[in-house]
Amino acid sequence: MIRAPIPGLAAGEHRLEGAIAHYLARVLRLRAGDAFVAFDPSTAREADAVTVWSDAGAVTVRIGELREGAARATRELVWIQGLAKADKNDAVVRDATELGATRIVVASTRRSVVKLDAARAAERQARWARIAQEAARQCGRSDAPLVESPRPWADALALVGADAARFCLWERAAEPLAPGLLEALAREAPLAFACGPEGGLEDREVDAARALGWAVASLGPFALRTETVAAAVLGAVRVWSAATEPASGGR
Amino acid sequence: MIRAPIPGLAAGEHRLEGAIAHYLARVLRLRAGDAFVAFDPSTAREADAVTVWSDAGAVTVRIGELREGAARATRELVWIQGLAKADKNDAVVRDATELGATRIVVASTRRSVVKLDAARAAERQARWARIAQEAARQCGRSDAPLVESPRPWADALALVGADAARFCLWERAAEPLAPGLLEALAREAPLAFACGPEGGLEDREVDAARALGWAVASLGPFALRTETVAAAVLGAVRVWSAATEPASGGR
Repeated sequence: MIRAPIPGLAAGEHRLEGAIAHYLARVLRLRAGDAFVAFDPSTAREADAVTVWSDAGAVTVRIGELREGAARATRELVWIQGLAKADKNDAVVRDATELGATRIVVASTRRSVVKLDAARAAERQARWARIAQEAARQCGRSDAPLVESPRPWADALALVGADAARFCLWERAAEPLAPGLLEALAREAPLAFACGPEGGLEDREVDAARALGWAVASLGPFALRTETVAAAVLGAVRVWSAATEPASGGR
Repeated sequence: MIRAPIPGLAAGEHRLEGAIAHYLARVLRLRAGDAFVAFDPSTAREADAVTVWSDAGAVTVRIGELREGAARATRELVWIQGLAKADKNDAVVRDATELGATRIVVASTRRSVVKLDAARAAERQARWARIAQEAARQCGRSDAPLVESPRPWADALALVGADAARFCLWERAAEPLAPGLLEALAREAPLAFACGPEGGLEDREVDAARALGWAVASLGPFALRTETVAAAVLGAVRVWSAATEPASGGR
């Protein structure tokens, strides 16, 4: 079944125009009579829907009764990504969304090669939010993660409350991630992870994390590229969370 | 410290020509007097080395005493990847190498869009072996995984012995991966995983895995893209293996 994100989803018949109409008609290729599942990524509610009419400029849809989305992230899970080059950030947003992140923050660090002025930061945030919505749709997830505006490393770390189990991933850390993560999973704590860009974190950035109460943890013997870290760590969370949740029916 | 793969590594002074000389001089930009660590990906042995002379066509290197590579995969870990489109297979080879796979097999399945004749299969195998060597070098790993020639799904599954804990990842599986994987990690069993291409596995392919003794396991509620599965699953193995190994000094 095709899943389509419709912000502000409400029951009844609606005429949609602009970007959302383009998306439904051109990208998802919904035609009159096509049934689909509409979901609101910001509220994680969804509904059975049918396309009543579709043409170049507008799409009319009939939305059924809203219900809680069937597949939503059940755990607060923050990913802070050191701003990397080119499309690596895009890949991290996509992977983190599939693997259940609920909030994504791209943080500029001292070794981030790319610099974002205010206009560019806003443009990137909008881009990453679109990627997260599309990734949520593709993986059958009813909610999309919140993509925060990019900000400096220390400000990004400060977004996460002390109730969360917080891990700064660093290849020179003395402690492995597993013991602290297992403990946090067992008590169902909110989770947060932060990792540097391709050049790594500077000592003072790791110190800043430590000073804010983050644990500094290693992923073991081989150095991962920054764009692999999110999938590896959130994959570990995913696999071990699933041990205590019912398996999905799948798609 | 720069790490350079030198097949057939031996102590003493050696004049290298051809592809390896090009790689050292042009890609790694080693100049006379540059120190580096040379390693033999097939034996996982390494040595301190110095560049004696470097010009367009040849590089002379002095190799010190050989030692066991410092960072090598400690667990037999097979990844079978359903042949996917375009560069997704490349990404999986790279991720699996960083995350400790010791053997990688790309398997053609019924829903694999790409078809490989014998010549193309040989060309791809060589390409993936190069990618694995380069990924091993970049992540500081002394050994590279063995990249098998591509083969049909059932033949790929049959490569793995029954002593290994074998998991076929399938989004419609009833059982989560974690319990079986935890049990296998605890008894330090060799591990093998198989996953389908972007179109997924057909029922008969899952049945074939089951008939060969593979467990069929799910990764939880959201459907992952095929190119995310290796990083997520091998990341989980990595994180949980590190719980029982000393942390690395890092690079």
